[in-house]
Amino acid sequence: MRTGVWFIGARGSVAVTSIVGALALRAGLTEATGCVTELPELRSPALPGFADLVLGGHDIAETPLVKKADALAAAGVVPARLVDAVHDELVALEREVRPLPSAATQALTAAAITADLVAFRERHGLDHVVVVNVATTEPVPPAHPAHADLAALRAALDASGEVLPPSSLTAYAAFGAGCAYVDFTPSTGARLPALAELARAAGVPYAGHDGKTGETLVKSVLAPMFALRNLRVRTWSGVNLLGGGDGAALAEPGANAAKTASKQRVLGETLGYQPQGTTRIDFVDDLGDFKTAWDLITFSGFLGTAMRMEFTWHGCDSALAAPLVLDLARLAAAAHRAGRSGPLPELAFFFKDPIDAGTHSFGEQWSVLTAFVRGLDGGAA
Amino acid sequence: MRTGVWFIGARGSVAVTSIVGALALRAGLTEATGCVTELPELRSPALPGFADLVLGGHDIAETPLVKKADALAAAGVVPARLVDAVHDELVALEREVRPLPSAATQALTAAAITADLVAFRERHGLDHVVVVNVATTEPVPPAHPAHADLAALRAALDASGEVLPPSSLTAYAAFGAGCAYVDFTPSTGARLPALAELARAAGVPYAGHDGKTGETLVKSVLAPMFALRNLRVRTWSGVNLLGGGDGAALAEPGANAAKTASKQRVLGETLGYQPQGTTRIDFVDDLGDFKTAWDLITFSGFLGTAMRMEFTWHGCDSALAAPLVLDLARLAAAAHRAGRSGPLPELAFFFKDPIDAGTHSFGEQWSVLTAFVRGLDGGAA
Amino acid sequence: MRTGVWFIGARGSVAVTSIVGALALRAGLTEATGCVTELPELRSPALPGFADLVLGGHDIAETPLVKKADALAAAGVVPARLVDAVHDELVALEREVRPLPSAATQALTAAAITADLVAFRERHGLDHVVVVNVATTEPVPPAHPAHADLAALRAALDASGEVLPPSSLTAYAAFGAGCAYVDFTPSTGARLPALAELARAAGVPYAGHDGKTGETLVKSVLAPMFALRNLRVRTWSGVNLLGGGDGAALAEPGANAAKTASKQRVLGETLGYQPQGTTRIDFVDDLGDFKTAWDLITFSGFLGTAMRMEFTWHGCDSALAAPLVLDLARLAAAAHRAGRSGPLPELAFFFKDPIDAGTHSFGEQWSVLTAFVRGLDGGAA
Amino acid sequence: MRTGVWFIGARGSVAVTSIVGALALRAGLTEATGCVTELPELRSPALPGFADLVLGGHDIAETPLVKKADALAAAGVVPARLVDAVHDELVALEREVRPLPSAATQALTAAAITADLVAFRERHGLDHVVVVNVATTEPVPPAHPAHADLAALRAALDASGEVLPPSSLTAYAAFGAGCAYVDFTPSTGARLPALAELARAAGVPYAGHDGKTGETLVKSVLAPMFALRNLRVRTWSGVNLLGGGDGAALAEPGANAAKTASKQRVLGETLGYQPQGTTRIDFVDDLGDFKTAWDLITFSGFLGTAMRMEFTWHGCDSALAAPLVLDLARLAAAAHRAGRSGPLPELAFFFKDPIDAGTHSFGEQWSVLTAFVRGLDGGAA
Ligand SMILES: NC(=O)c1ccc[n+]([C@@H]2O[C@H](COP(=O)([O-])OP(=O)(O)OC[C@H]3O[C@@H](n4cnc5c(N)ncnc54)[C@H](O)[C@@H]3O)[C@@H](O)[C@H]2O)c1
Ligand SMILES: NC(=O)c1ccc[n+]([C@@H]2O[C@H](COP(=O)([O-])OP(=O)(O)OC[C@H]3O[C@@H](n4cnc5c(N)ncnc54)[C@H](O)[C@@H]3O)[C@@H](O)[C@H]2O)c1
Ligand SMILES: NC(=O)c1ccc[n+]([C@@H]2O[C@H](COP(=O)([O-])OP(=O)(O)OC[C@H]3O[C@@H](n4cnc5c(N)ncnc54)[C@H](O)[C@@H]3O)[C@@H](O)[C@H]2O)c1
Ligand SMILES: NC(=O)c1ccc[n+]([C@@H]2O[C@H](COP(=O)([O-])OP(=O)(O)OC[C@H]3O[C@@H](n4cnc5c(N)ncnc54)[C@H](O)[C@@H]3O)[C@@H](O)[C@H]2O)c1
Ligand code: NA
Ligand code: NA
Repeated sequence: MRTGVWFIGARGSVAVTSIVGALALRAGLTEATGCVTELPELRSPALPGFADLVLGGHDIAETPLVKKADALAAAGVVPARLVDAVHDELVALEREVRPLPSAATQALTAAAITADLVAFRERHGLDHVVVVNVATTEPVPPAHPAHADLAALRAALDASGEVLPPSSLTAYAAFGAGCAYVDFTPSTGARLPALAELARAAGVPYAGHDGKTGETLVKSVLAPMFALRNLRVRTWSGVNLLGGGDGAALAEPGANAAKTASKQRVLGETLGYQPQGTTRIDFVDDLGDFKTAWDLITFSGFLGTAMRMEFTWHGCDSALAAPLVLDLARLAAAAHRAGRSGPLPELAFFFKDPIDAGTHSFGEQWSVLTAFVRGLDGGAA
Repeated sequence: MRTGVWFIGARGSVAVTSIVGALALRAGLTEATGCVTELPELRSPALPGFADLVLGGHDIAETPLVKKADALAAAGVVPARLVDAVHDELVALEREVRPLPSAATQALTAAAITADLVAFRERHGLDHVVVVNVATTEPVPPAHPAHADLAALRAALDASGEVLPPSSLTAYAAFGAGCAYVDFTPSTGARLPALAELARAAGVPYAGHDGKTGETLVKSVLAPMFALRNLRVRTWSGVNLLGGGDGAALAEPGANAAKTASKQRVLGETLGYQPQGTTRIDFVDDLGDFKTAWDLITFSGFLGTAMRMEFTWHGCDSALAAPLVLDLARLAAAAHRAGRSGPLPELAFFFKDPIDAGTHSFGEQWSVLTAFVRGLDGGAA
Repeated sequence: MRTGVWFIGARGSVAVTSIVGALALRAGLTEATGCVTELPELRSPALPGFADLVLGGHDIAETPLVKKADALAAAGVVPARLVDAVHDELVALEREVRPLPSAATQALTAAAITADLVAFRERHGLDHVVVVNVATTEPVPPAHPAHADLAALRAALDASGEVLPPSSLTAYAAFGAGCAYVDFTPSTGARLPALAELARAAGVPYAGHDGKTGETLVKSVLAPMFALRNLRVRTWSGVNLLGGGDGAALAEPGANAAKTASKQRVLGETLGYQPQGTTRIDFVDDLGDFKTAWDLITFSGFLGTAMRMEFTWHGCDSALAAPLVLDLARLAAAAHRAGRSGPLPELAFFFKDPIDAGTHSFGEQWSVLTAFVRGLDGGAA
Repeated sequence: MRTGVWFIGARGSVAVTSIVGALALRAGLTEATGCVTELPELRSPALPGFADLVLGGHDIAETPLVKKADALAAAGVVPARLVDAVHDELVALEREVRPLPSAATQALTAAAITADLVAFRERHGLDHVVVVNVATTEPVPPAHPAHADLAALRAALDASGEVLPPSSLTAYAAFGAGCAYVDFTPSTGARLPALAELARAAGVPYAGHDGKTGETLVKSVLAPMFALRNLRVRTWSGVNLLGGGDGAALAEPGANAAKTASKQRVLGETLGYQPQGTTRIDFVDDLGDFKTAWDLITFSGFLGTAMRMEFTWHGCDSALAAPLVLDLARLAAAAHRAGRSGPLPELAFFFKDPIDAGTHSFGEQWSVLTAFVRGLDGGAA
């Protein structure tokens, strides 16, 4: 069950942490802490093993993987000894990380991406390839009529001009190559009617959006706590301070807005009303790949008594994201193999802003996920 | 479906907040914020209404209910306008709050308690009475061979000396009177084999222990979050600063130990291992009925990366406890009516240290509770 | 030594809290907690007593003082029993709170303000009047050449159009009436060369800017701690969540910018370099007059070791501001009486953004203040 | 001006961090961050330079310095590259770190310590030697009549049995050798009348007690802030979570009590009253050399309004202590050279529980310290 994992944004923090981790796991140098597919409830023969994963990707940057891995080690994201141990494999992997194609029309660019994916699959004789978007967050793109219909989209892509944002063009190309697609970012990705149509037609599954790793993860367990105790959340305000590449990107107002909306949605959907307050994202270069988030929650209880809670989360985003990226690749490949196509709402557990999700409650998402994996298991038997 | 609620510790903060709240709810003066039995998923014709509750209780103190209610209003626990509105009913209720009996042997004391309960039920023509322990937390009592066997217990109670701690003697008396019993405290209560035997023989249900209202409530949603994300919790340390009567009692080393153990259990049972760290309870008189708890959690993620979270909870314990006390009274009465006897593990959702609970995960406890209420519903139809 | 205190913004939270407090102090109903002029080191016969203060003011709003005081009591800012106790005096005071004049030219408006001030002084036979600006924070006004020179300013005010922002026009009018002026807000106030010229010419002192009551107060003691221990502050980021009238005003981007700049200045000036990070002010209506501020400070120590500190401040802004407003009125009146004119940099202790201050260190500001009061004392003897 | 620095506890975290730092500073490999004697206000020709410091010490443990330094690097206390750079000097220094002598009577033990100190001074031709106590915190020792009088003490030491705790015996031996003495720990050290007598007789100065590095440092700037603003601190409670050798020692109830008392003293002395609340120290092995302290402060302001502040301090104790240890060695040597003998209250700035200190206010301590250094300067000129 050799499975390809193709990173869009392969030279970024999340991708390189995932790569170093996958290589270290394969070599038996580390434990799978943070990988939920290694929990007893989710371990399954239907999932490809870490040793079955074959890695590659696109990026627009040229930083060598080893250099990025060294920087992550210096920043405390990954242990230097692991980077040293997988040094030669990182060097060898350079061959599989390619510049993002760019051509005269978006149709031609997509065709070049598809060609890269097909060549990767054939070169390694892979059963399945999962394309994972871990590229820089994009601003929300302008609406376009061709987003609603596959035929119209194909026509529009043949003309010049940008019809799809990069994340969606990649999803289009992935579907065209018969690859599953996972969007770990808040970008548009596969979230357009025309692309849903294409995924179904191509018989490939997809999942997203926006990995749930820090403040929102905590929100997704605390908000149900207040809801199930019938306590009234009056305000919920937060600030996220982060540096790193992701922080720099989110300092752009467009990307910031996309991310912030994604972060507050969980509250309204869990509580059934939108409490006052906002979530801020502030770039503080010196904080590097570690993020500090602080949230204040005020609520009222029996007879209206006012109370409050606050929390500070100090997490390493890339170290939280990478094991989930590997989980998602394993799960999407297994779903593909089991014949699933279109959106995978059962993977809501992983996302801030899940596609078609019935619930934002972490506990319920977990139940749905375990049932999903048991189902795959059946298929695998 | 007129239902009695008999408070052991009827003049304490939790009891009087519950009483003021029940009277205000009946009069339509307030909303049922904090009452989980009023959530859509749990609303059920099988449960007695707030207007069906008839109140009474025992206490060893003599503070008038009105005086205690005024003190709670001054402390910001309940609104002064509600206390004023129910003033006359509080005065009238004095008649139903009796000094805790005390006789030559524990058998005689229990008989006197039973007699009070039976008289209360008959005086008001009640279908069911639920005895709720909200008295001061006791120290862990010395073990006694008679705790293991009902016949031996009956014999021992006839002799002089203290065989049962007060909370267990009350449970014994409640069961003898055919009343359901809820232990909202960490005291021993019904948690002895001889009393389990008695409850089954008497055909009455019971539930406990130790209402989950603050730091432990938060623990019970955060610990599963770490577990389900396969993150390794390394240390979890906390401190609870509180004043009030409960704070003063918990300043006693014996009571403190009982409570502290109850608070850390959730971690070991949820995570499958015991992280380093302790939970402290410190009495700070000036903080009154509001409690501030602070917890620090350190954990490691993918490739061992060290991260941390901390939270501060600033809650009014009595305002958090009272609506749950009313919920428990409604649920225990309905269970009794539905023919349940012995422990009610389905009520684990409410407790720090639930009897026979399969899980400490808040989400799963919720699922079990909703199924339980749907089951009662069936019986009610 | 009867002294007038004339509030610009007399119907606002800070002013009404100051008024209720002054009346309660005069009646001996409360202690002078929060008034620094009541500390042993600053108590002085040179300062007018609380009983000597005669109150009045301008506002553009019309909310009755009693209504505002009731709202403050409901919000927990002042005790309801004190508002009740001074009810009649609040009603009587309505007479002394006048609508802010507005005329065809700014010169005419200023003349009307001056006339109100002079009438107030004469009506009550006051030795001195201190005008205190506690009005809504203004946006930073556009620069104007007439700001630099008194003669040019006089000429420009005679024309139509807005040459001075309201706070500066009030300062101009106060100086014209021979009144001392205190700016408790971050608005421009007397901070223009032409007004400095006028104050000296009129022989009146002034002080400002922006009362230091919450997060910035804490900054002004923590920043010197890091500096004096030779620890390198790398980042200092904060967020202020507040409701109330002040919160609503600061939600305006212009006012927000003025206030934010005032808040970060203390860091650069104390540390000698500007650490990374920003201070946010977010309006959360439901928080009312209480403000929650959270700050994260990261710093490095010996051999570069990375460390961090965070704090949460939960304060009632008006309750922190009001006693300082009374202090400043007493001090400015005594300075005026002692013959001081122009800026009073010795009052830097009270301000976020003090005029001509040599230091932002709280400890040093205190030393300067005590010396200043001892100096007045000498004059008073 | 070659100056000896003799560490009691030379193989501990604070000592080895100081040693690595001193060697790195001498080699120009690092900046003097955290050393207050390098601030412009304190730089003085009267102080020995870092390059003039000659190091040695006693310990009861045998861990090689290099091994301890490697452990500190692994724990993130010191950078691994600096430990590597000074590796050879650390090895060479083993020669100067000796086992703590132990003989039949305390008099003989003291004589052996004195002999070690004298030999060290002569071997290196040092002008002055400063003995710095950075050994494990001792429990509070039982009182003994001989503590009050030097002659009685000398007699008692000749008998068998423990008259002085180890820290005091070291101080006795240091004074006997004509060495200055600094107590960085909360142990008794020189704090006995008989030892004060001896220091004066021997013409040597001493300073202490208990380096002010973390929570207490913050307390010493926040408490004056509340005091100078005339705000009433109602409660101040804290918890310190720490691992490492110091944490393990403080887990002993005796040592814990000594340290805790030292930590709360600053509040009573600064505020003029003792607020409610306590300071806890809890050992959490996994936290290693980093300490997390959390403090809650509740206070009331004008008209009694209740407010609160909390802070979390996450510091590396050894990295905070080491530069101060070097500062103290430089200052004590200069004081000795300037002819000072007996206690040095001017060094209160450095200590939680300073000897004879007039004030606990950090700002005032700083003024006293700068004056002291300027005074030495005069002497040096
Ligand atoms: N780390 C987390 O916890 C987390 C959680 C949720 C979402 N995310 C998302 O994951 C993404 C990656 O985060 P990161 O920290 O690795 O960021 P990063 O800045 O380190 O890496 C992003 C990489 O994407 C590349 N890139 C940019 N545009 C591209 C394009 N059009 N095609 C291909 N590559 C492109 C960049 O060159 C860079 O190498 C972000 O969108 C972030 O919002 C991360
Ligand atoms: N408030 C919460 O959030 C919460 C949560 C979990 C558990 N609890 C438990 O609830 C109990 C009550 O808390 P509280 O804050 O109301 O305390 P409280 O001190 O205000 O009230 C306790 C009352 O019990 C009475 N009492 C003591 N011994 C008695 C006895 N043997 N029989 C009858 N009455 C007796 C006391 O006189 C007092 O009136 C405590 O055991 C507490 O640990 C409270
Ligand atoms: N409370 C604090 O701790 C604190 C600290 C520093 C500065 N301040 C400043 O004090 C000021 C007052 O704060 P507040 O909370 O009382 O606000 P508020 O909104 O309650 O009151 C402001 C009052 O000013 C009046 N006003 C507006 N423009 C006016 C004008 N041109 N002339 C006369 N009156 C006018 C308004 O009608 C209102 O009654 C603000 O500028 C605030 O930034 C407050
Ligand atoms: N690090 C700080 O910020 C800080 C602040 C204030 C005080 N202190 C005090 O400094 C001391 C040292 O702290 P640490 O973290 O280095 O502890 P540590 O446990 O790492 O080192 C203590 C050393 O003292 C040695 N020792 C024990 N008893 C001795 C004796 N009688 N004679 C000679 N050596 C002896 C031990 O073998 C050990 O090597 C402690 O007393 C601590 O309370 C530290
Ligand atoms: Na906090
Ligand atoms: Na915090």
